[in-house]
Amino acid sequence: MKGFTLGYLAKHVNGRLAGDPDVEIKWIATLKDARSGDISFLANRQYARYLPGTGATAVILQEKDLANCPTHAIVVDDPYLVYAKIAQKIVGVVSEQVPSGVSEQAYIDSSAEISPQASIGAFAVICAGAVIESGVQIGAHAYVGREVRIMKGANVYPHVTLYDGTIIGQRSIIHSGVVIGSDGFGIAMDRSSGRWIKVPQVGRVLIGNDVEIGANTTIDRGAIGDTVIEDNVKLDNQIQVGHNVQIGESTAIAGCVGIAGSTKIGKHCLIGGGAGIAGHIELVDNVVVSGMTMVTKSILKPGMYSSGMPARENRQWRKNLARFNNLERILKTQTKQEDHD
Amino acid sequence: MKGFTLGYLAKHVNGRLAGDPDVEIKWIATLKDARSGDISFLANRQYARYLPGTGATAVILQEKDLANCPTHAIVVDDPYLVYAKIAQKIVGVVSEQVPSGVSEQAYIDSSAEISPQASIGAFAVICAGAVIESGVQIGAHAYVGREVRIMKGANVYPHVTLYDGTIIGQRSIIHSGVVIGSDGFGIAMDRSSGRWIKVPQVGRVLIGNDVEIGANTTIDRGAIGDTVIEDNVKLDNQIQVGHNVQIGESTAIAGCVGIAGSTKIGKHCLIGGGAGIAGHIELVDNVVVSGMTMVTKSILKPGMYSSGMPARENRQWRKNLARFNNLERILKTQTKQEDHD
Amino acid sequence: MKGFTLGYLAKHVNGRLAGDPDVEIKWIATLKDARSGDISFLANRQYARYLPGTGATAVILQEKDLANCPTHAIVVDDPYLVYAKIAQKIVGVVSEQVPSGVSEQAYIDSSAEISPQASIGAFAVICAGAVIESGVQIGAHAYVGREVRIMKGANVYPHVTLYDGTIIGQRSIIHSGVVIGSDGFGIAMDRSSGRWIKVPQVGRVLIGNDVEIGANTTIDRGAIGDTVIEDNVKLDNQIQVGHNVQIGESTAIAGCVGIAGSTKIGKHCLIGGGAGIAGHIELVDNVVVSGMTMVTKSILKPGMYSSGMPARENRQWRKNLARFNNLERILKTQTKQEDHD
Repeated sequence: MKGFTLGYLAKHVNGRLAGDPDVEIKWIATLKDARSGDISFLANRQYARYLPGTGATAVILQEKDLANCPTHAIVVDDPYLVYAKIAQKIVGVVSEQVPSGVSEQAYIDSSAEISPQASIGAFAVICAGAVIESGVQIGAHAYVGREVRIMKGANVYPHVTLYDGTIIGQRSIIHSGVVIGSDGFGIAMDRSSGRWIKVPQVGRVLIGNDVEIGANTTIDRGAIGDTVIEDNVKLDNQIQVGHNVQIGESTAIAGCVGIAGSTKIGKHCLIGGGAGIAGHIELVDNVVVSGMTMVTKSILKPGMYSSGMPARENRQWRKNLARFNNLERILKTQTKQEDHD
Repeated sequence: MKGFTLGYLAKHVNGRLAGDPDVEIKWIATLKDARSGDISFLANRQYARYLPGTGATAVILQEKDLANCPTHAIVVDDPYLVYAKIAQKIVGVVSEQVPSGVSEQAYIDSSAEISPQASIGAFAVICAGAVIESGVQIGAHAYVGREVRIMKGANVYPHVTLYDGTIIGQRSIIHSGVVIGSDGFGIAMDRSSGRWIKVPQVGRVLIGNDVEIGANTTIDRGAIGDTVIEDNVKLDNQIQVGHNVQIGESTAIAGCVGIAGSTKIGKHCLIGGGAGIAGHIELVDNVVVSGMTMVTKSILKPGMYSSGMPARENRQWRKNLARFNNLERILKTQTKQEDHD
Repeated sequence: MKGFTLGYLAKHVNGRLAGDPDVEIKWIATLKDARSGDISFLANRQYARYLPGTGATAVILQEKDLANCPTHAIVVDDPYLVYAKIAQKIVGVVSEQVPSGVSEQAYIDSSAEISPQASIGAFAVICAGAVIESGVQIGAHAYVGREVRIMKGANVYPHVTLYDGTIIGQRSIIHSGVVIGSDGFGIAMDRSSGRWIKVPQVGRVLIGNDVEIGANTTIDRGAIGDTVIEDNVKLDNQIQVGHNVQIGESTAIAGCVGIAGSTKIGKHCLIGGGAGIAGHIELVDNVVVSGMTMVTKSILKPGMYSSGMPARENRQWRKNLARFNNLERILKTQTKQEDHD
C-alpha cells in the first residue's frame, strides 16, 4: 500500500496545511475509528463530537473546527469534496478490480471488437457486433448484447445485463444486477378481446460518460426513440427508469426511485430515495425532490418539492388520519358559520 | 428490412385508409422524429402539436385529427392499439433474439427434455427434469431449476432465475434479472429464544400464457399451495409478488409495486407504479389503484382507489403538514363552538 | 417421502396431543386444501372458517379452537411457530438443494479454500482468497469475490453476487439476484466544475449467522467502516440497505424497504413493506414501523410508528386532498374567530 505525505496531499487539493507536511498517510478512516497513519474528515456536524478524541494522523476540516483538532489538519472549504479527492488518490476510484486480460471462460462472438487493453471476466458473454474499448473491465457473468458499445475505461461489474444496442460512455460504472435495455411497459388494451397487445420496443439506451449506476437498477430501452442518461448522472441502487426517460447532466437520484416513461428530468436535479415520478412530464434543471415524494405534474420552476409524510407514534397517527377523514364536516360547518357571520 | 404497403397495413387492422395505398412503410417512429418511410401515431393528446409538422409517411389517428394530418393516414378508433398491431407486423413482437440452437456452453442435465426447436444461450443451466418446449428461447446465464416447465414460444431473457418447479406458460416473456420461485417471507418468532424460525416454503409459481414480466421483478413460491399469475397478466419492472398471491387474467401492474403474501387480485385490474398492497386481502375484478397508493383492506367494489399525496413546493408542504398535525386543536375548538351555538 | 407419527411430532414440539398418536403425517397443507396424510394449522383467525371442513389428518391449533376441529390435533399456544418447527421436520429447512460436489463448470481460483463438504454449482466463480466452509451450497452462476468468507452450512442461491471481502455467517440463506458489497451512494459535488466526484467505498459487508436475505435485495459495502447485518436478521425481497447501515439481531424487514446510509436499526425491530428510513439516524430496539411509513428522524422509544395513508375511493380521496390543501384558510378563520370570542 502506497503512502503519501500530508504535504503532498494538501497541495493536491489546494488545501491549507496545519501541521507537519512530512507525516505519512496510508489509509482513510472515520474520526471515530481512525488510527495512526489514517486521514479522516469532518463534514456532517453530527460527527463533530468525535473530533477531539480522534486517533487519526490528520483530519480534513473547515477553519472553524481547527481549534478542536488534536492532530495535523488540512483546512478547506468543503471537507467532504476534498476527502473524496484524497480518498481517490489513496485507494483508487473503483474498489473492485477484475483480473486483467480476457478470461478463457468468456464467450465472445467472433464479430465483436475487443480492445487488447480490455479485461473480460469468466463466463461473460459478448455478442455479435459489440465493441469493447480500451481500459474497459467486464465482470464475470456480464451479458453484453449485440451491437453494444462500451467506451474507454468503463467498469461493468459481474452479473450486469446489457440488451442489444446499449451504449455505455467513458469511465461509467455499472454495478451488479443492473439491467439496461429491457423492454419498457408498452401495452395496448384490445377492448374487443379484453386482452393486452404488446407494443414492440425498438429504441436503445444511451448512457453518457462518468455515469454510475447502482446495483439492481433497471433502465428500459426506448419504445421508439432512445432512453438517455446524460454525462455525470449518478443513480443509486434499485431505481426503475422507464422507456424514453431523459435524465440531464449531473443529476443524482437516490435508491428505490421509480420514473415512469417519457419523463424528462433536467440537469443538476436531486431526487430523494423512494420518490415516484409520473410519466410524460418534465422537471426543469435544479429541481430537488425530497424522499418518498410523489410527483404527478411537471415542475417548471427550480426549487424543492415534497409530499412525504414523516412517521409519528402510531396512536397519534391514527388520530390524525381520523381527523383528516372528517375534514369535510368541519369545512362545511365552518363555511356555514362564515355565511352567518 | 421488409416493408409493407400502407394499403396492406390498413387492411390488416381494419382501418380506413386516407391516402395512397401503395406507399411503402419500412419502420415506426414518433410524430416528432419520423422520416420518410416511417409510420407514426397520435394517441396521447399531449403530442398533437407534432402532427402538422411530422415527417412521417403515414400516421395512425382518429377521424377528428385527420384534418391536421399533412400526409397519408389510417383512421381508426384506437390509434395506440392499432399502432401496437402494426408495429408488431413491422418489427416483430420480441426485440431481442437469442441465437437459435443450443449453445455448447450451456449446461443441460441429461434428464431434461429440450425440444429440437428450442434455443438455449451460453452458460445457461437447465436442471434435472426440466422441460423446454418448442420455440422457447432461453437467454445466456438463465437458470432453469429442477422440474421447471417452459411452454411453447416463451422467451426467457439472460440472467433469469427460475427456482425448482416453476411453470411458464406459452409465449410468456420473462426479462433479465427476474427471480421466480424464491422462498417467501415465512418466519415465526420463537418467544422462548427470541429468535425467528424459518417456515419452509414448498409451493410453486405458476405463470400463465401471454404473461410478460419486467426486469428484476421477483415472485415468491407459495408457502404451501402455489403462487398464481394468470394468462395475459403484465408486470412491469421491480415488482415484488409475495408467496401465494394470485393475480387475475389481464391485470396490468406498473413498476415498483409490492404485493404482500396471500393477497388475491382480480381480473382486469390496473395497479399504478409504487403502490403497496397488504397481505391476506382481496381486490375484485376491474379495480384501479393509482400510483403510490397504500391498500390495506380488501376492495370489494370495482372502481378507482387512491391515497398518494402529490408533491407541492416544499415550504407550502411543510405548512400543510404543520396544520395536519394541529387538527386536533381545531376540531376540539370547533366542537366546543358547535356546542355553544 | 418420510412420514412421522402424530405422537412423535407432538412430542417434538411439546404440544398436547388430542387424538391418535399413531396416525402418520406425510406432508403439510392449508386447512382449505389439506388431504389425508397432511398436517395443517390455524393461526390467522381469517382462516378459522376452514377448520370444521378440513380434510387434514391433523391440525395444530390453540385450545379454544379444539371444539371445532373435526380430526386429530396438536394443541399449543403458538400454532404458527409450532407449524414452522413441524414443517422443518417434514420438508427440511431449505426448499432448493444444489447437487452436491463441485461442478466441473465452476471457475475456482487456485488460492480459494473450498471445503470438501461444500457444493458449488455450474458456472459459479470463486475468486482469489475466498473461503468456502463445510456444508456450504453455492448455486449456479454465483459470483464470490476475493477474500469472501462463507461459513458453515450457508446457502447461496444461483445468481448471487458477493463483492470482495463480504462475510456470510453460518447457516445464512442468500436468495437469487441478491447483490452484497456494491459501492454505496457516495458522491461529493465539486461546485467549481458542477460535477460529482466519486467517494471511494472501501468498507465491507458483514452478515451474521442465521440471516436470510430475499431475492434481489441489495446491501452496499461500508464507505469506510463496515455495513453490519447481525445474527438472525430476516430481510425480504427487493430491500435496499445503504452503506454503513447496522441492523440489530433478530430484526425482520419486509419487502421493498429502503434504508439510507449510516442508519442504525436496533434488535427485534419489525419494519413493514415499502417503508423508507432516512440516513444517519437511529432506531432503538423493539421499534415497529408499519408499511409504507417514512422515517426521517431517530426513534428513541420502543413502540409502533406510522405514516402510511390507506387507500380510499378516488373521488373521496380527491376531496380529502382538496380540504387538506385549504387548511390554512380554515385555520386562519378559526384563529380570528377565537380572537373575537
